[in-house]
Amino acid sequence: MSTIASRAWRLSGPGGSLAFEPVAVPEPRPGTVRLRMEAVPLLSYLGAYVAGGLPYWYPPGPFTPGTNGIGIVEAIGADVHHLTPGRRVAVSPHLVADELTDEPAQILVGLTGISPDSGPMLADWRHGTLAERVLMPVSVLAPLDGLDHLPSERLAALGKFVVPLGGLLRGRLAPGEVLVVNGASGYFGSAAVLLGLALGAERVVAAGRSPGPLEDLARVAGPRVMPVALTGDVEADTRALREAAGGRGAHLAFDQVGQAADANATLAALRALRRGGRLVLMGSMTAPLPLSYGEVMLNNWEVIGNFMYGRDAYGKAVALLRAGLLGLEAVRITGFALEDLPAAMRHAAAMRGLDCTVVRIAG
Amino acid sequence: MSTIASRAWRLSGPGGSLAFEPVAVPEPRPGTVRLRMEAVPLLSYLGAYVAGGLPYWYPPGPFTPGTNGIGIVEAIGADVHHLTPGRRVAVSPHLVADELTDEPAQILVGLTGISPDSGPMLADWRHGTLAERVLMPVSVLAPLDGLDHLPSERLAALGKFVVPLGGLLRGRLAPGEVLVVNGASGYFGSAAVLLGLALGAERVVAAGRSPGPLEDLARVAGPRVMPVALTGDVEADTRALREAAGGRGAHLAFDQVGQAADANATLAALRALRRGGRLVLMGSMTAPLPLSYGEVMLNNWEVIGNFMYGRDAYGKAVALLRAGLLGLEAVRITGFALEDLPAAMRHAAAMRGLDCTVVRIAG
Amino acid sequence: MSTIASRAWRLSGPGGSLAFEPVAVPEPRPGTVRLRMEAVPLLSYLGAYVAGGLPYWYPPGPFTPGTNGIGIVEAIGADVHHLTPGRRVAVSPHLVADELTDEPAQILVGLTGISPDSGPMLADWRHGTLAERVLMPVSVLAPLDGLDHLPSERLAALGKFVVPLGGLLRGRLAPGEVLVVNGASGYFGSAAVLLGLALGAERVVAAGRSPGPLEDLARVAGPRVMPVALTGDVEADTRALREAAGGRGAHLAFDQVGQAADANATLAALRALRRGGRLVLMGSMTAPLPLSYGEVMLNNWEVIGNFMYGRDAYGKAVALLRAGLLGLEAVRITGFALEDLPAAMRHAAAMRGLDCTVVRIAG
Amino acid sequence: MSTIASRAWRLSGPGGSLAFEPVAVPEPRPGTVRLRMEAVPLLSYLGAYVAGGLPYWYPPGPFTPGTNGIGIVEAIGADVHHLTPGRRVAVSPHLVADELTDEPAQILVGLTGISPDSGPMLADWRHGTLAERVLMPVSVLAPLDGLDHLPSERLAALGKFVVPLGGLLRGRLAPGEVLVVNGASGYFGSAAVLLGLALGAERVVAAGRSPGPLEDLARVAGPRVMPVALTGDVEADTRALREAAGGRGAHLAFDQVGQAADANATLAALRALRRGGRLVLMGSMTAPLPLSYGEVMLNNWEVIGNFMYGRDAYGKAVALLRAGLLGLEAVRITGFALEDLPAAMRHAAAMRGLDCTVVRIAG
Repeated sequence: MSTIASRAWRLSGPGGSLAFEPVAVPEPRPGTVRLRMEAVPLLSYLGAYVAGGLPYWYPPGPFTPGTNGIGIVEAIGADVHHLTPGRRVAVSPHLVADELTDEPAQILVGLTGISPDSGPMLADWRHGTLAERVLMPVSVLAPLDGLDHLPSERLAALGKFVVPLGGLLRGRLAPGEVLVVNGASGYFGSAAVLLGLALGAERVVAAGRSPGPLEDLARVAGPRVMPVALTGDVEADTRALREAAGGRGAHLAFDQVGQAADANATLAALRALRRGGRLVLMGSMTAPLPLSYGEVMLNNWEVIGNFMYGRDAYGKAVALLRAGLLGLEAVRITGFALEDLPAAMRHAAAMRGLDCTVVRIAG
Repeated sequence: MSTIASRAWRLSGPGGSLAFEPVAVPEPRPGTVRLRMEAVPLLSYLGAYVAGGLPYWYPPGPFTPGTNGIGIVEAIGADVHHLTPGRRVAVSPHLVADELTDEPAQILVGLTGISPDSGPMLADWRHGTLAERVLMPVSVLAPLDGLDHLPSERLAALGKFVVPLGGLLRGRLAPGEVLVVNGASGYFGSAAVLLGLALGAERVVAAGRSPGPLEDLARVAGPRVMPVALTGDVEADTRALREAAGGRGAHLAFDQVGQAADANATLAALRALRRGGRLVLMGSMTAPLPLSYGEVMLNNWEVIGNFMYGRDAYGKAVALLRAGLLGLEAVRITGFALEDLPAAMRHAAAMRGLDCTVVRIAG
Repeated sequence: MSTIASRAWRLSGPGGSLAFEPVAVPEPRPGTVRLRMEAVPLLSYLGAYVAGGLPYWYPPGPFTPGTNGIGIVEAIGADVHHLTPGRRVAVSPHLVADELTDEPAQILVGLTGISPDSGPMLADWRHGTLAERVLMPVSVLAPLDGLDHLPSERLAALGKFVVPLGGLLRGRLAPGEVLVVNGASGYFGSAAVLLGLALGAERVVAAGRSPGPLEDLARVAGPRVMPVALTGDVEADTRALREAAGGRGAHLAFDQVGQAADANATLAALRALRRGGRLVLMGSMTAPLPLSYGEVMLNNWEVIGNFMYGRDAYGKAVALLRAGLLGLEAVRITGFALEDLPAAMRHAAAMRGLDCTVVRIAG
Repeated sequence: MSTIASRAWRLSGPGGSLAFEPVAVPEPRPGTVRLRMEAVPLLSYLGAYVAGGLPYWYPPGPFTPGTNGIGIVEAIGADVHHLTPGRRVAVSPHLVADELTDEPAQILVGLTGISPDSGPMLADWRHGTLAERVLMPVSVLAPLDGLDHLPSERLAALGKFVVPLGGLLRGRLAPGEVLVVNGASGYFGSAAVLLGLALGAERVVAAGRSPGPLEDLARVAGPRVMPVALTGDVEADTRALREAAGGRGAHLAFDQVGQAADANATLAALRALRRGGRLVLMGSMTAPLPLSYGEVMLNNWEVIGNFMYGRDAYGKAVALLRAGLLGLEAVRITGFALEDLPAAMRHAAAMRGLDCTVVRIAG
């Protein structure tokens, strides 16, 4: 099996050395594809991850970090039927074993194991997207047809949208419904607000702690977005959210809260729901969420945990882009060369709202 | 039980005399409401219906014809909990018995019986909306909150939208999907095109026999609408529809075909579907629809008959209006005074596309 | 409006006097039916309710308590289309306004208001089933066709089944799935176990605090039921539940826990779920339920509050009975005469598992 | 890449030579598994297929025919995470590309291409199950845990059940519903009847042309099965089906009709549905199905084409077997040695109802 030359960032392990170095990329094996990467978005916590400070299940080192990204198919293995060389695709890091079992092994390529049985898959697929060339299983590659007018650097922002899109689809957001987004000034939360509009929400209540970013977001997003700055007082916040929702309670609340000392913001979002409403949890809160059992029951509420997104999410995002229902122009892209990853990581750590730090990769 | 005076159109029976005359409207009985009507849209075939030429199950005469309309709650009966005097509502003609049975009796108030057991209900609720004051069961009245800026004459056009909305919801149209509307130049079909956009379709293929009206519609509706003039040749039409759908086949086809001598247009719409696509039937074709059994099976297609709409349709339409996702300004309203019903019926018979003939009712 | 004579229990108010006395029952108004009651099941807490010790929203007194029951249609009002005199029906206490609004007013007839706007409905429908004759809205009456071989006294036990059935349907229990029932030795929980079998669960893990009743239940219910006596230690209980579930985690957990000082049993039921599993809450726990946010998210779990049941539940229960998939013979009925309500209430307070206290009403 | 020795049936092409011969089986490539086969069920038309008389898209020859079967995992390739050597699995012939595209390439391994783009996949996966050892992609292998008490020869009959199970799941058959099976005396239709019971149908109307086999089936299946011998007269047959359905119309009709000169039986099954009922098409009729457009619409009927089954079908079938809700003992297995394939094919051609011809494969 021949290999081709490439350059890639390699991390020796959590908190270990990170170097940009020549590496060999093997020829595609069956069911896989080799990509020439063009652009990779950075997670805000990539620096902390590299420094070893996050409780993740790292791939065995040395490995290439990096989730998501846009690349061009360069070579295909056997058992590949639809992707062809030259086609532009998005890389989704969520790899799930295609076996007929209830709980298939899964990982986030280039980032972490997830389930107790992630180990062998993590060893097989340890290398993420921060490289000139990568090998990826076909099941994580989403075609980007009909978007030729958008440069890869901008399309890299799709990684910011597809995660909350997964939650909004799981939460069954329907046109004409009212949506509350908690954590709306954050990286994914701000994207959720734009997605809510694209999916036809009657209005989107953008809730968070910082009034400034929420108002900025509302200015960009238009009159169907109602910013609400939360105070931490559950009762007052619930009242404010319900009022902003039009006085009738929301159909769906989407929680993308960050590290929070208490669950008050999430509880206010829950209580802003009308009877039969749904709350989707996709944030990173470590405090427990103390549900009022009787209140949840009497109101027929659903609390839905959601990890990442389903197979249809990338295709849906691409269709919304093609239709012009979703635009990426509101995203503030800051580009760095691949070689400048350390600077890019520092920039990413300071992203707010619709910011997006992207690494560009020259052919 | 006291009664109040009103004037109403009364039809003695199919093909019988139609007169505008003083009538008594009883006080609301339990579960009912009295409305002061403000505007009533006319069906294109109302003249033919009055003349007795349609195979409908007419209410026992004399009765007041007229389906749909906008009115103000004037008095409420017992067992009414949410409607209050002064509130503006839309009348939906589809009355279904609120009993725990598999196939409850149903009628279209002011128009026709539907199921074999419609008789007694038709006798109870024989009077439709073409009157100054009407008595209606609460279950057919949809509140119009948040639409105070729209006059009743314009809101009367909701009756044109809510029928195809029922079909699009039944067909599970989702944002980002591709929709084909067959019969797109018709009264309901043209509304379906606008609704497809409001519900977030990536594109809407507007198909019909007459190129002119389709192009007019596309001009009003914008670049996501693709007009396709059908030729009657199933293969050629299928090709044209698929191409307009973006080359990938549509997710949903909505058939609102009128009286047609053959099923070719509907078959082309079906064949424009991608694997797993859905075809919703809401037209008035009397010719049989000859499905290719094997083709339907191999493609996992669904053919879904749909009568009218569910309980959520009016609320959804109202929310789309409030959000500005759906606009009624594209509808060409022509108003007549209630006294001028005969002239209005003649006008309605000539409606095309986004036309809407409305009868105005003075307080 | 004429009235007919009847005898009924009347409670002057919470903790007030309860007397069996002659009353007048009005002729049916539109949308309602008069029943001659034959059998009424008692809730375990009816005595405490009558004594005024429960935090319920009582109807204005004097009123007739009593939820559920089996009766014969004796007279029908206008606007009733399917029920006819002589037909046997079950009374469901859950009355919901048939109006086109997001959150219609609702009550439990003969028991309590539910939503902030329950007041007027509670005043209109204050009288429950503990009477010889009752007036009821048609929407709460479920026909019992095809069950002529079952006496009303036994059919009264349907009230015990339809509540958990509502939860199992809401939780989307499908044939071949594994179900955990928490609170399985209780009044509704034991019925949930039998329903799980009737709905085709591969196995039903019957969890509760008391080993004896669980083993009795398993003996009655057969080999697909696995009793698990909980210890209060969440980790150990989770392990025991998962093992009983077959080692793969359950698809659905149904929580019908009673008054509990902590949420440990419910949390163990949640953790017994496989990825993507659902937990339905229908118990009466007043302690908060502290969800681990990250665990719920990573596992794609759903926590579904469910109040009562949908319109289809009675029909489904009746069909399962007709099919012989569900049997009422395992229920231990103890009958009392209507006059002996106080003794019956004392008996009901001591019900366990499959017990059912029923009041018989002579014609 | 090393290979191992095996013996397999090889067909040179449609109507060509069929020989049992030594062949080489390659070591598993990534994403694949090598099985030692134990038992393979035969399709009734396998003889005709081999003789070249069927309009199928044959794999390029020489190839090994044979769909479905039971085998033991012998070796695994890279990128396989759950299957381990020694585990017993069922082979499902339906292979679908695991790529993020709307209409992924698909074939039936060992039988036919399906979609216009099946060609390359058919070339890659040309060899079916009629061999001692086979190589298969992991995505078509279903674990058979918890069924150790059932010999592979009997489990081979699963292939007969999983196809109609796919249709019943697609048709959303729910416990307590009434099911009509058209073509109930056939190979798949008779299995559909047993599955309907296993899935909790209140009753299953078993419809077909031949009274004898239907009555045999009803005898085996018990009192919830109602045999109806069709006459070809749509009106009379509709009446008979509705009466057997309990007089209320069926919720679901499942059509597995064989080659039929007209659509009368399918139309009668459709008309046996109640309002809102579903008809699933999985038969092999080549005549068109002339739907009455207005009747389908007024009744809110759905006509659902269904090809094969979803990813969950094998797991569901296995769970029903484990629970004892579905039994294979009613299936009349006739076994042949692998070497005796020609005799086995002749036997298979004469299968009726619950017959199942199985080829046994010695280690």
